Amino acid sequence: MKKIVNEPTDYVDEMLDGMVAAHSELRRLDGTDVIVRADVPTDDVAVVSGGGSGHEPTHAGYVGDGMLAGAAAGAVFTSPTADQLAEMIQAADGGAGVLCVVKNYEGDVMNFDTSAEMAELEGVDVRQVVVDDDVAVEDSLYTSGRRGVCGTILVHKCAGAKAAAGGDLDEVERVAEKVVENVGTMGVAFTSCVTPEKGEPTFELAEDEIELGIGIHGEPGVERTETMAADEVADTLLDAVLDDLDVESGEEVVTIVNGMGGTPLSELYIVQRRVAERLDAEGIDVHDAWVGDYMTSLDMMGCSVTVCRVDDELTELLDAPAETPALTVRE
Amino acid sequence: MKKIVNEPTDYVDEMLDGMVAAHSELRRLDGTDVIVRADVPTDDVAVVSGGGSGHEPTHAGYVGDGMLAGAAAGAVFTSPTADQLAEMIQAADGGAGVLCVVKNYEGDVMNFDTSAEMAELEGVDVRQVVVDDDVAVEDSLYTSGRRGVCGTILVHKCAGAKAAAGGDLDEVERVAEKVVENVGTMGVAFTSCVTPEKGEPTFELAEDEIELGIGIHGEPGVERTETMAADEVADTLLDAVLDDLDVESGEEVVTIVNGMGGTPLSELYIVQRRVAERLDAEGIDVHDAWVGDYMTSLDMMGCSVTVCRVDDELTELLDAPAETPALTVRE
Repeated sequence: MKKIVNEPTDYVDEMLDGMVAAHSELRRLDGTDVIVRADVPTDDVAVVSGGGSGHEPTHAGYVGDGMLAGAAAGAVFTSPTADQLAEMIQAADGGAGVLCVVKNYEGDVMNFDTSAEMAELEGVDVRQVVVDDDVAVEDSLYTSGRRGVCGTILVHKCAGAKAAAGGDLDEVERVAEKVVENVGTMGVAFTSCVTPEKGEPTFELAEDEIELGIGIHGEPGVERTETMAADEVADTLLDAVLDDLDVESGEEVVTIVNGMGGTPLSELYIVQRRVAERLDAEGIDVHDAWVGDYMTSLDMMGCSVTVCRVDDELTELLDAPAETPALTVRE
Repeated sequence: MKKIVNEPTDYVDEMLDGMVAAHSELRRLDGTDVIVRADVPTDDVAVVSGGGSGHEPTHAGYVGDGMLAGAAAGAVFTSPTADQLAEMIQAADGGAGVLCVVKNYEGDVMNFDTSAEMAELEGVDVRQVVVDDDVAVEDSLYTSGRRGVCGTILVHKCAGAKAAAGGDLDEVERVAEKVVENVGTMGVAFTSCVTPEKGEPTFELAEDEIELGIGIHGEPGVERTETMAADEVADTLLDAVLDDLDVESGEEVVTIVNGMGGTPLSELYIVQRRVAERLDAEGIDVHDAWVGDYMTSLDMMGCSVTVCRVDDELTELLDAPAETPALTVRE
């Protein structure tokens, strides 16, 4: 197994200790796999998230000023427990309530539901928004409906900025839902991911094969096909997302070309070039374009393309200052 | 070949177009593979760099406010030509002179020398600093002396901050040399990189083998050994660097755990955990710890550990604001 690990069973624990060691603005809640801001709770609405590990920097990498107040890490590709989520929600709450950003997987949805009930019993005002931006498949492995993938980061950014600007829980929830309604993503795998526990590929892909519509846990996509050139990859992913969102000429969007963990940044920029060229040709305005590893699948080679339709409210929130391990926006 | 590319011969060209498409603060000099700040030249000293492609975000990812004024991209793992470097130097100069940050490879050193002579003929005041932070080997493939690797990023940051603070060319050069004298790095490969032109591994490593002291172009390291656990990897790299720098208890350092391109962030944090634990045990103060992909080798799995001894002057420069595609520091 070509991994830089100690005992696979210590993977998440040691990773979280490393994050906190590198980022003094983060704190690990004692006895949990929950990362919170060292300075929470504040008076602001707390936006929190969580999910299985293996998608770093998601989610703990987005904890910080202007984004998340907390993030819970489950085992690799496994939902955090309801107990841990409830501890996070209570720790993050500063009295103005908590918005949970949940990727649409059955385990995550179930455990966030339970944790919300637990926290409400303790007097916390809790809301949830479920992100289901993956346009590739309905009712996949682990999901009813569509999967939540890289578009989730835009929900973190907008909801976190709204909270930092003093928005109340209704407003923060509304903004988060607005992103969810306007964002779509599709991914492709060039190789499988390898989980630390199993130590071998989750699925097999031949040397000349790729899988379109792949999930971030290696769940099946929509089509296994021959390797494509970068431009065809970009076109295929972008077409699927634009078609789903029904984006029209003259509208404004933000895009993400996201790496799955094992693909170098140089290749993501090659995809970005084509995405930008295509949007320009279609008369779609690009407010901002993010390129990098935002929502990964361990060491998988591949990428995803995210498009989010934006208006003045969302662009202002996306441009607002933030300071987290994985994303910093200056004033 | 598991790469997201079009024609391998278009790799650098398309990557640079993608960078500029994503970052409106960057501009590509017409007819070149040089990226400059859209707003240069300014009155500040210009700090520039360059080298072969395949190490992204190095170097163009560090072009921006508070770091580099320009970066030239050669073909993959190949020095930029002297002509391109000279064009960069002249475009970046705002009248206060230009400091070239050069990684110590024979081609880079030779071409930067020639380009400096060319720019001086045009009246530009040019200085050079050569970075040779790799403690693993002397006189490797492509080098006389030690190789320049991830420590180069700290030179960009400190020299760029000094220039942005209004330092003159002497001061900017002095600060850059100070970093070079105090920084060391050592890397390890778990897999080989694959160049787009060749499409197959640059070197062979068995499934249970790693190579210590690897170069960022796949040049030979110091030892090929059995796969190690993450803590042993961290100890081996850190010991070599601390020994070379002769860092003592009570001194202050900045560290980088750098990914080679194909290793997920989660594993880098596992290494970071051990690096932090070791430095703490040895009574060495850590001012800041960077974890991520800063100086890569295409899709190589592996990492490097960088340590830089710092004083008040260097910490102030490292903490100064910057805004580049790959590194943003808030006020």
